[in-house]
Amino acid sequence: MIAQAPEAVTAEGPLAIICGGGTLPFTVAEAAKERGRAVYIYALSGWADPHRVKDYPHRFGAIGQLGHFCRFAREAGCRDVVCIGSLIRPALSQLRVDLATIMALPDIVAAFRGGDNHLLSSVGRILEKSGFRLLGAHEVAPEILMKEGALGGFKPSPRDEADIAYGLDVLRSTSSFDIGQAVVVADLRVLALEAAEGTDLMLERIADLRTRGRVRMALGRGVLVKAPKAGQDRRLDLPSIGPDTITLVARAGLAGVAVAAGATIIAEPQRVAQAADASKLFAVGISESGITR
Amino acid sequence: MIAQAPEAVTAEGPLAIICGGGTLPFTVAEAAKERGRAVYIYALSGWADPHRVKDYPHRFGAIGQLGHFCRFAREAGCRDVVCIGSLIRPALSQLRVDLATIMALPDIVAAFRGGDNHLLSSVGRILEKSGFRLLGAHEVAPEILMKEGALGGFKPSPRDEADIAYGLDVLRSTSSFDIGQAVVVADLRVLALEAAEGTDLMLERIADLRTRGRVRMALGRGVLVKAPKAGQDRRLDLPSIGPDTITLVARAGLAGVAVAAGATIIAEPQRVAQAADASKLFAVGISESGITR
Repeated sequence: MIAQAPEAVTAEGPLAIICGGGTLPFTVAEAAKERGRAVYIYALSGWADPHRVKDYPHRFGAIGQLGHFCRFAREAGCRDVVCIGSLIRPALSQLRVDLATIMALPDIVAAFRGGDNHLLSSVGRILEKSGFRLLGAHEVAPEILMKEGALGGFKPSPRDEADIAYGLDVLRSTSSFDIGQAVVVADLRVLALEAAEGTDLMLERIADLRTRGRVRMALGRGVLVKAPKAGQDRRLDLPSIGPDTITLVARAGLAGVAVAAGATIIAEPQRVAQAADASKLFAVGISESGITR
Repeated sequence: MIAQAPEAVTAEGPLAIICGGGTLPFTVAEAAKERGRAVYIYALSGWADPHRVKDYPHRFGAIGQLGHFCRFAREAGCRDVVCIGSLIRPALSQLRVDLATIMALPDIVAAFRGGDNHLLSSVGRILEKSGFRLLGAHEVAPEILMKEGALGGFKPSPRDEADIAYGLDVLRSTSSFDIGQAVVVADLRVLALEAAEGTDLMLERIADLRTRGRVRMALGRGVLVKAPKAGQDRRLDLPSIGPDTITLVARAGLAGVAVAAGATIIAEPQRVAQAADASKLFAVGISESGITR
């Protein structure tokens, strides 16, 4: 894990953002604009907020319409591309394909074998073959990365710290299998490990398991731990948390959330801190070296 | 993993079965009776089938009533004890305790820190301190273990075999963390990894993720893989499958289920084979050495 935030890419020139769901693409767009870059948004229909894209020159498109995207980005004079926002892994049969996509088909089919990591790094290769430079959102807007230390007033107890260290060990051992980036640990017991369901549904499961009597841990015990996978293409898929994560952590009855500092995207840090304080939860960025065993 | 079924314990003398939910305790009881052993059932209230326990000398009790159980088992002249059947990990606050349990309290409190494995091996130590010999259900009834090869007419394809090998690798890497004994892999992608939810809820999750569009795999792809954890106390907690597992595997849209031969309990093998054939699924017992990489 990287503990340090990378330097912002200061290169000039317009930036194309392939824009999924949520507010994060607009945080990145604003940060890039403040650095003096022109921003063009390729809005993925059904995902990108149709109201907020209006603030930028934009075009709507679908995943897989590589030729359509390339024309849009080239017309705008963009070489740099950032992909950001929520998305669900598409099914091959649901992709709307155009000619350029069909030309890239061997890469795309290969991308659909194996885990998310594999899918995403293939996206990077495909864009680069088309003459673009794929950047991580945190490279154009380093302020979206979680820093070390607590957001808000609560901090992990020594027991929470033991659960965090255990959770990091679990994530380290599973990351080579391209499994999810999150785990819930309480009293050194793994309650849930994320795979295809994603972090939100995993947290809802903890609340559900309490209702069903399968998790009978006292309220206020346990930690959500998030960290990037080993060998993950960080330009495309850093773990992220936001205010909704805190709401779900509270509903799951946990003590807090710990994420890898410098390698986790934090959407709306002020709202995260407020939500954590309101629920008496901690939200901390941790560096590996900061964890005692 | 053990590929060979252990020899049955042929020792004479009456057997006490601490009986949880499901039909498996009665399969074990019948097998022990056929071998000429008297069988006494300590039925866990709320779990043990109250109708079927009537076929045996029995007493109802609750988890944690160690003194009550010990009196029952000693009166019956039992030295050997088997714990078998479904149960949910109890909360310390919900245990009904008696004096003998309070005497054993330091062990019991220790048992509630850490994962299931840790809990279960502590149960073994507590029973042995009380003068009993804890046996695995498969030691008194080896016929409950899954054998190598397919039950029913369907077999894994080469693609399924690759998913099975991958799943076994995942389980091997996570088992030191005392996480669950099951994983779902499709096209070399981990869709779900079991922790506190148990296998049934994990399979329901796959069906749910299809509905939500988060898993868009074609139907008939993917495998449920089950294997015991490393260092697990096999007297208490071998993985198991039964006809209901097949129903859930079918609902999840998978191709089949693969379990560690000689180290997985199979409840009602004929019904498992029928259910697998009816859903065109495979159900195979595999030895580690039988898996090609």
